[in-house]
Amino acid sequence: MELLKERIRTHGKSVGEEIIKVDSFLNHQIDVVLLNEVGKEFKRRFHDIQITKILTVEASGIGIACIAAQYFQVPVVFAKKTESRNLDAETYESEVYSFTKEKKYKIRVSKKYISVEDRILIIDDFLANGKAVLGLKDIVEQAGAAVMGTGIVIEKGFQQGGQVLRSAGIRVESLAIIKSMKNGFIEFES
Amino acid sequence: MELLKERIRTHGKSVGEEIIKVDSFLNHQIDVVLLNEVGKEFKRRFHDIQITKILTVEASGIGIACIAAQYFQVPVVFAKKTESRNLDAETYESEVYSFTKEKKYKIRVSKKYISVEDRILIIDDFLANGKAVLGLKDIVEQAGAAVMGTGIVIEKGFQQGGQVLRSAGIRVESLAIIKSMKNGFIEFES
Repeated sequence: MELLKERIRTHGKSVGEEIIKVDSFLNHQIDVVLLNEVGKEFKRRFHDIQITKILTVEASGIGIACIAAQYFQVPVVFAKKTESRNLDAETYESEVYSFTKEKKYKIRVSKKYISVEDRILIIDDFLANGKAVLGLKDIVEQAGAAVMGTGIVIEKGFQQGGQVLRSAGIRVESLAIIKSMKNGFIEFES
Repeated sequence: MELLKERIRTHGKSVGEEIIKVDSFLNHQIDVVLLNEVGKEFKRRFHDIQITKILTVEASGIGIACIAAQYFQVPVVFAKKTESRNLDAETYESEVYSFTKEKKYKIRVSKKYISVEDRILIIDDFLANGKAVLGLKDIVEQAGAAVMGTGIVIEKGFQQGGQVLRSAGIRVESLAIIKSMKNGFIEFES
């Protein structure tokens, strides 16, 4: 998605060779006009599938999922993050390891909001190691529902998440895939 | 806003006399069609003011703010919650006491995303004791910017937040104000 790549080039800030900060339009301040184009592009790429819900994880996935949901005309469910150890019989839970924060956290979704008939599109802002998407997929499968695809705004192509998910048979559509970041120069896969 | 009140009546779950759960359409699962009506109604109520940004706080405010921002044609900034004690010279911070969780937490906004020219509309899902809005207002004022108003989806009229904010001169528009919840019956202010 050229508009997005251009924004990443002009407004993203690479920190070293692995971190890209997009706080000015995606993660802290949110450009809702750009997000609408992102939502339209997800719909264009997934026009061939029928979905019943979009699933994401708090916090930065929520805005993207809500704007995209307007184009799919489905509700959004966002998994809640918690470090609590309590098991709750009323929620599906999965554990996600964050390399950035170097700790595990749990994500939870109430059993009321995913059911066996659901056909789920997972949406998230970043794909790096793939652990968050795998946790969401785990929750969808606990509910007996189907993951129809995964829409990612920015994939770090130099980390293994994309390969892990695709080789697990998950359809992943990433709107911008960063191949490398060296000396502040961001190179995308074509 | 009748559509919202009706949804609260039919899909909200009161727990005792002070807690109302709206997980099925606002806080965990999100009905984006309803959120669009909420966004339009905020625009209708605040049609007389010019704003440059919408400010909210993660996580459940984000979806509401993003959908509403489409009607105002401005970016969203969401304050991040953290329990960290670190001071960061690059962020405005404020401390908020949560009665629900019985603890203090910090909210932060990067100094890059609020500036002295900004005219801010604060949006949040709930207004109870008003501490979150006061924390956001504090951050806006640290930046030398102006709070033009506060848009709330559900105000708990039986708690003091609405009165605190209004008597501090803040314009508050709440789309549904709950007067009382007794024996599972939710009564709204007219």
